[in-house]
Parts: sequence; structure tokens; C-alpha cells
Amino acid sequence: MPAPTQSTAATDRFIVGVDLGGTNLVVGATSADGSRQFGMYSVPTRADLGADAVVARIAEQIERVVAEATSTLGAPRTHCVGVGIGSPGPLDRETGVVLFTPNLGWRDFPLRDRVQDAVRLPATLDNDANCATLGEWWLGAARGAKHVVGLTLGTGIGGGLILDGRLYHGISDVAGELGHMTIDSNGRRCGCGNYGCLEAYASGSAIAERARESLAGGEPSSLPRLVGGDLSKLTAAHVYDAAKDGDELAIGVVRDTARFLGIGVANLLNAFNPEVVVLAGGVTQAGDALFEPMRAEVRRRAFKPAVDACRIVPGVLPNAGVIGAIATFAQRQGLM
Amino acid sequence: MPAPTQSTAATDRFIVGVDLGGTNLVVGATSADGSRQFGMYSVPTRADLGADAVVARIAEQIERVVAEATSTLGAPRTHCVGVGIGSPGPLDRETGVVLFTPNLGWRDFPLRDRVQDAVRLPATLDNDANCATLGEWWLGAARGAKHVVGLTLGTGIGGGLILDGRLYHGISDVAGELGHMTIDSNGRRCGCGNYGCLEAYASGSAIAERARESLAGGEPSSLPRLVGGDLSKLTAAHVYDAAKDGDELAIGVVRDTARFLGIGVANLLNAFNPEVVVLAGGVTQAGDALFEPMRAEVRRRAFKPAVDACRIVPGVLPNAGVIGAIATFAQRQGLM
Repeated sequence: MPAPTQSTAATDRFIVGVDLGGTNLVVGATSADGSRQFGMYSVPTRADLGADAVVARIAEQIERVVAEATSTLGAPRTHCVGVGIGSPGPLDRETGVVLFTPNLGWRDFPLRDRVQDAVRLPATLDNDANCATLGEWWLGAARGAKHVVGLTLGTGIGGGLILDGRLYHGISDVAGELGHMTIDSNGRRCGCGNYGCLEAYASGSAIAERARESLAGGEPSSLPRLVGGDLSKLTAAHVYDAAKDGDELAIGVVRDTARFLGIGVANLLNAFNPEVVVLAGGVTQAGDALFEPMRAEVRRRAFKPAVDACRIVPGVLPNAGVIGAIATFAQRQGLM
Repeated sequence: MPAPTQSTAATDRFIVGVDLGGTNLVVGATSADGSRQFGMYSVPTRADLGADAVVARIAEQIERVVAEATSTLGAPRTHCVGVGIGSPGPLDRETGVVLFTPNLGWRDFPLRDRVQDAVRLPATLDNDANCATLGEWWLGAARGAKHVVGLTLGTGIGGGLILDGRLYHGISDVAGELGHMTIDSNGRRCGCGNYGCLEAYASGSAIAERARESLAGGEPSSLPRLVGGDLSKLTAAHVYDAAKDGDELAIGVVRDTARFLGIGVANLLNAFNPEVVVLAGGVTQAGDALFEPMRAEVRRRAFKPAVDACRIVPGVLPNAGVIGAIATFAQRQGLM
């Protein structure tokens, strides 16, 4: 595919980003210099309809965003430089194949080429948590930092590493699986099959699970009322809300979450000595009630020169995954 | 200081390396291309005599090695390019200052400049475990690999990271403190003050300590006999030896060590996705009895694409710290 002429101003060219999640997929675009945004459409992924249907839905949203961007900019379609795709992994960036992803039920699916063929635009593929981290580095809370560790807390915990201003992928594109760091060798069972992973303690689902366990102990709490008595509906967001309203049980769950995250983040400081650790996802809703005790736990556990050199901050971009998918495309194509 | 003329053949120029430890310091040299070695003299550090005395002892050994190399090569002293120093950290590479090191009792000590002034040769300073890892990468078990994680198991556990063929230092030179990764949040007390660090389970001293605890349980073992009944003299080497001779208690301690190391190494595979993990120090004496169950634990815990891409091997260089100190000098001076 021909690249757009280099003389086109960066504000006129644009790149589309796709953030593919198990529940929703989000598509948007920015100008190549990041100064303007277009779209940011979120639609259900509907992985149950099969991979072909997911590709069709992605393509549909890309076309919608391209139409919006070209119309707003008064620019031809050739001003769309390409599409960066962020997907759950593990995946192979070189071949553009998603190796397997339990959430979508895929195995060895050539996602990049399927999207590329559907929209006839060059595309790149990277891990969703890598993208979220790169998004915060490009336009968000870790802007311009040299070394950044990102944690994305949702149903699971994803991680991303930016070293020397570039995503670090390791030797086979699986670097940054930080949610599956063991913090308790005989600890809680994780969805990955192991025991004691950080994800088994501090992901959104683990937070809800620990709250349910505390409730089973009979401690009084406002949480059951918040979910109409159906505890299966309990989420981390309910726990954060109840903690803000002074619910003692919820406060305890948040405090424990802060401790677990602090242990994981301290390990990351000792290993990577980053300038910024950015935590994105639902956890940012918890605010200082979580971040302050987490930082205290990190100070207790990490080496002082590493602590002194590092900011630990919540993510600030509502669509870091899309922004970062755009940035991965730009870095891969040498545009950044 | 003037650099030697670039026309001097790499086999005629040489670089001195210093590996400063709490007990001994080792000094040697190699030709700039690594093809020839000189010296490798080990003398007691005698930190108890004070920092000035340590610098004098280092300088004395450097002069000894320089004399040997120049005499063997029939080359003038100007063919000595400089001195790479590996020291316990944390330290500041830019200023050449050791910030603090409990083993030597130093705080803010300008080691690099003191050595440089004493021998009138340009010097660089880096962390000892970084040096050991770079040594194995340059001339040892991880030769030429792109991404390498090194663990050095001695009294403590040090770590080093080579990413894209270069030492990774982080934002303030403390990256790679892998021995202080928490693997058990409520676990054993570590010398660093925290609980559950890998070092508290799998360092040489922790291995001896766990063996003593097992003996206190009354299980029969040949270990007390190996140390003449004085269990304070027990070392990890005794445990490895006894295990090789079929001592059940020692076999159990080695098996547990393999499990703890496997957890730590699995975390490193998930985070860094390296091509090689190299474990150096006394642990290499344990051989397959330790490495095989350790690799099995890693396979249980780490992501398959990370496991498939990685060799987990013992270090092979008797003086990896010296060789690596030479290599850090070469990398810093742009000679490598």
C-alpha cells in the first residue's frame, strides 16, 4: 500500500486505533501528531458470533471513523495512514496473528491481515495492555517519560513496559505479563491456572471476590444493598463507592487491594527502576483511598533510590487503549 | 587522559576489570576483543581496614595485572585502555559514587575517582551483578543473546538485565534488584528489612538457614557431621554436596530451593520474556538436581510462549564479575 506523501502536514494525516476487548471494542482516530481526535466509538464485541463477525464489526467502526475524520478534515481517504490494533494476547506482532485469547475464544487468528484486507489500509497488531501503556506515555499521565511501567486493571491485570521511550516486547512478544507475577507462592488460585498471581488479588474480579468472601464472614456492610442482594453482581466499582461512603468492610477490601498492588509495584520498581508507574482501568476510580496506602507499601518494600525516582500515578486517558494502538502503529512505521 | 591510538590492534590493547566483593576482590584483564586473559588475582577485601585501604589494595592488584599484561604482550602501559569496576550497589554510574553498601560499610564513597586517581587510568563503575550478567553475555553462557536476565546467588541475590544487547540500568541505576522481588507477601524476613523476598529463600545464606531449620526438626542427616557438629559453619555448598550423596534432608532443601527459584524465574520470564536466564554463583554447583525441578516450576508458572523462547542455564565463567566489569567499561567507552 502506498504511504501518503511525506509533505502532508501531520495535522492532516490521521491514524485509526482499535482497542479490542472481550466485552466491547472501541475505535477512534487521531491526527498523526496527536493533536486532534475523531470518533471513539464503543460497540459490543460479540465474540459469540465468531471471529468473522468481530472482524466485520471492527471494519464497520473503522470506516465510520475514517468517514468522520476525512469529512472533518476535508481530506481524502489517502490521508488515513493506517490502523493500529490492540488485542488481548499473546500474539505475534511480525505475522499479526493472535496466538490465543480465552476471552474471545481465538487460537492462531490472523487478526491484523483480516482487518487490513477488510478496510484496505495498512495495519499493525500489538498487545492491548502495551497499547494502553503507550497511550498514557504519548498523550497521558506518563507523557514523555523515559522508562514507564503500566498496569491495566480490569477483569484481569495487563502490563506494558516502555524502556527508553519505546515499547519493550521481549524475545517473543510476551514481555509485560505483569499481572501474572507471583506475589504469594502458596496463594490464591488465578485464572491462568497458577497460584498467587497479582491478578488473583488485585484485578477487578478479584476485588469483588474478596469482598464477597468478607461478606460471607457476616460483617455488616452496605454492599449487598448496592446490588439488590445479588452478590454475583458485585463489582470493584461498588466496593470503591461503598468505601468512599465509609463502609468499613469495603474500606478494608480497598486497603488490602492497596497492599497487594503495592507489593507488585515494589517488585516492578526494584526490577525496572522506572520513572513512572501508571495504573489504568477501574482502579483509578478508587482515588487516593487506594493510591496513598499503595504508595506507602511501595516505600516499605522497594529500594529507596528507585522509590525516589518514580511517580506512581493513575491513568488519565479515557481511551488509552485506542490512543496507544495509534501510537504503536506510528512507532512501528517510524512516524514517532 | 588520552585514548590509545585507534590503530592499535584489539588484541594488543587490554582492559582491566575489578570485581569488588564483601569478602574478596578479584582483578584481571582481557584484551579488548576478549580473546586473551591476564591475571585474575583474588585477595581479601579487608573492608574493616577502611575505604582508603581497600582502594590501595585494588590499585595494587591493578598494577600487578597491568604489569603482567604489558610484559606478556610486549606492549607499553598506554595499551591499557582503562579499568571497569564492579561494586555492590546502589551506586551512581555518572558520578562514579557508591551510594551505600552494607557489606563494605560505605556511604557516598567516590570509588571510581579514587581508583582512577590511584592508577592514573580512566575507570567506570557499575553494579557487580550487572557486571556478572554482562560477563556471561560477552564470553559465557548467554553469549550474543538479545535479552538476558542474570541472577547471581551468593550471600545475597543480585540481578542484571541485558535488553537489546546492552545493560539496562533504569532511571537511577537501580534496575535489576531481582533478589528483592517479593514471592511471598507474608513470608520470611529478608536482610533488606522486608518480608518474602526471593533472597530470603534462595540465597546461599537462606539455603543454609533453611537447612538448619530442617535439622532442628530432628530429621536424620549427614549435614552436622560435614561441619563437625558446628551448624553455624553450614553453607549452601554443604547442602548441595549432601544432596548429591543422597541425604534426604538436603535433597528436600535443594528441591524447595528449586521451587523458590522457579517462582522468581517465572516472574522474570513473564515480565522480560528473555532469550536466556543465567544463574551464576554457588548455585551452579547444585547442577541438574536443582536446575531440572527449577525449570519444571518455571514451566508450571510462566506463559508458554515465554517458556518456549527461553534457555535457563548455569553461568560458566569462573570470573564473570571481572569479565563483565571489563565489558561494562568497553560498552561505556563505545568500544563494544
